[in-house]
Amino acid sequence: MNNKLDVFISSQSFQEEDLRDRTVVVLDVLRASSTIVTALHNGAKGVIPVGDMGDASKISQNLDSPHYLLSGEKDGVKIEGYDLGNSPLDYTTEKVESKTIIFNTTNGTKAIKRSGLATEVVIGSFLNLNTIVEYLQSIENDITLVCAGWRGRLALEDLLCAGNIIAELVNGTLPEYVQDGAKVAFGLYEKIGDDIEDAIRNSNYAIRLKDIVSEDDLRYCCKRNELKVLPVMKEGIISDFHGEKE
Amino acid sequence: MNNKLDVFISSQSFQEEDLRDRTVVVLDVLRASSTIVTALHNGAKGVIPVGDMGDASKISQNLDSPHYLLSGEKDGVKIEGYDLGNSPLDYTTEKVESKTIIFNTTNGTKAIKRSGLATEVVIGSFLNLNTIVEYLQSIENDITLVCAGWRGRLALEDLLCAGNIIAELVNGTLPEYVQDGAKVAFGLYEKIGDDIEDAIRNSNYAIRLKDIVSEDDLRYCCKRNELKVLPVMKEGIISDFHGEKE
Repeated sequence: MNNKLDVFISSQSFQEEDLRDRTVVVLDVLRASSTIVTALHNGAKGVIPVGDMGDASKISQNLDSPHYLLSGEKDGVKIEGYDLGNSPLDYTTEKVESKTIIFNTTNGTKAIKRSGLATEVVIGSFLNLNTIVEYLQSIENDITLVCAGWRGRLALEDLLCAGNIIAELVNGTLPEYVQDGAKVAFGLYEKIGDDIEDAIRNSNYAIRLKDIVSEDDLRYCCKRNELKVLPVMKEGIISDFHGEKE
Repeated sequence: MNNKLDVFISSQSFQEEDLRDRTVVVLDVLRASSTIVTALHNGAKGVIPVGDMGDASKISQNLDSPHYLLSGEKDGVKIEGYDLGNSPLDYTTEKVESKTIIFNTTNGTKAIKRSGLATEVVIGSFLNLNTIVEYLQSIENDITLVCAGWRGRLALEDLLCAGNIIAELVNGTLPEYVQDGAKVAFGLYEKIGDDIEDAIRNSNYAIRLKDIVSEDDLRYCCKRNELKVLPVMKEGIISDFHGEKE
């Protein structure tokens, strides 16, 4: 592969035009990306990301209620009346198989919505890292990794995930001329190495939400290459294209 | 010092509220910060940062023409009819002594303008790094380093400067709980070490503007601790408080 590679640290740190005609990977490790990947792995038909509760209820009115689940969080907590929150471990086969999930989340959705000019949008996390890398290696298109971040800020877990993807993509040696964001993400990967879980346990997000994000959630979201899922957004719905696109 | 320490990678990557009551250091290494520091060192009375040419000409109408200089760049190039561009090496004693400089620049000014809720805004660069660090060590207030970045993006030279400031501030050992942005900046410092000039020569900005930013400019902006200047913004004017505030 010889694609141009870029990284943005949050959904506010780029112009939408910067993503035009590129393949975009959205990373929201804690926890939207990890939850989407898990839901699809456990048989959910699709995930519809929405930006607020109003959108969520509008979409749900057009779907038969046995076929969809309302899910998502505000400030880390499950929204009242919703079927599921944002803990990936809640998205079991029993609960999500064959369902369409209307997924309301703060930062991850914002990043996805701002990727409208991209050729395609895929969802990445540590869990499906290898599947993402294999897919990116198979395409010719330029690649941008968009970290969801938190309210415009850098979130260490997302940038670290970007760094890990880059390291696999370039086989451990960064070409001299890549974008500054890619250099910084790769540098973070080199610094942290395999101490992913420890680094993320001490990240701002994990500390801020330590009463909400369980230790199990945290440990789960830090696992590399657990699931072979390639979540791709098509006409507003994210579904699994693993085995079809690579 | 035991202040809380934060870093933002661009002027778009925070809410203005995030800076409330904090001491903010604005970093725009290539080249606005370096130019402001140089101008003050060479005897300029003050620098008035403005966001566009309209503001610049409005302000200039209220000043006697022998006492001010219109200066600044658009996309790296001196604006037509202006006295000076954005090359710090042009801001010689001969040209700037006792003058007030109306300074029109893209990213640096945006960062300054978004710092309205801060207790105080100081301007940092590699050139005046030690003076900035000494000042920050002397205060009790929480500190945010705001990298100007480029159109919302991360700019390696600014984040690297932030990392260098942090390294001096914490004497080389980062406390476990600092903001993610500070960790990433510090990690970049550790990775690059003394190869500042090389790293910045290969940064996006230097490559993008390699026909405009001279080799002399680049080398100059990468020099650490050349000038003892503490540029502080008061009522819209940046002047040198070195020797007064520390």
